[in-house]
Amino acid sequence: MNLPLAFNDVNEYFFPHVIASFNDHYIKAVKVKGNKVPWHNHENSDELFYIVEGRLVMEIENQSSRILESGDIFVVKRGVNHRISSEQECNLVLIETKETLHTGQETSTITRTIEDQLTLYRSAKSNSR
Amino acid sequence: MNLPLAFNDVNEYFFPHVIASFNDHYIKAVKVKGNKVPWHNHENSDELFYIVEGRLVMEIENQSSRILESGDIFVVKRGVNHRISSEQECNLVLIETKETLHTGQETSTITRTIEDQLTLYRSAKSNSR
Repeated sequence: MNLPLAFNDVNEYFFPHVIASFNDHYIKAVKVKGNKVPWHNHENSDELFYIVEGRLVMEIENQSSRILESGDIFVVKRGVNHRISSEQECNLVLIETKETLHTGQETSTITRTIEDQLTLYRSAKSNSR
Repeated sequence: MNLPLAFNDVNEYFFPHVIASFNDHYIKAVKVKGNKVPWHNHENSDELFYIVEGRLVMEIENQSSRILESGDIFVVKRGVNHRISSEQECNLVLIETKETLHTGQETSTITRTIEDQLTLYRSAKSNSR
């Protein structure tokens, strides 16, 4: 599975698509453009961000905001309030436990169920049989 | 933490260096050149490979060998015998649980303890204080 190519199948901003799994974690490809992600946290899982292409604004409560660039890895520890945004399109990878809800306990217009996030992954698996 | 830059501090082939941690996993940067990795498996952990630069030969027991290229992600499931090699230098990332031994139950000339693998990570953390 080639990571940059995986984004070719992602056609909607803020909609995380599972592309691989290992142990109790999912790897998800997400395209971000704009600032629709609400402040949220994940009570039971750290969340790993890896920027494949573009620039991401990472805001952490009570800290200065950071710019993450292509090739950067950043871990948001469990329980820490954060939100992300990007002026231009940014392709990134999220790694989080299988039960983690991508907008935490917040529900907004961008919130997707884990079932929705698994659509591409299941279709790729059934095509490779 | 920038992933491609992390390899600047890795000066020995086959020696995994922890560069980040999340949940119960370590992310490790490894440079591979040659075929010193013995056949092995990890009884209790899947192992994620991500090729940052170069080409890696991935051999899985009873399967045809694969060539992994830059940007490729590949998961070796727990308990599956495998070995990796590369003719030219290949920079890759491993993600595995914190207890996982990088050459499984096999001990060879390249085997490093998890303590050894943590050296760079601890020194980076203490420098950033």
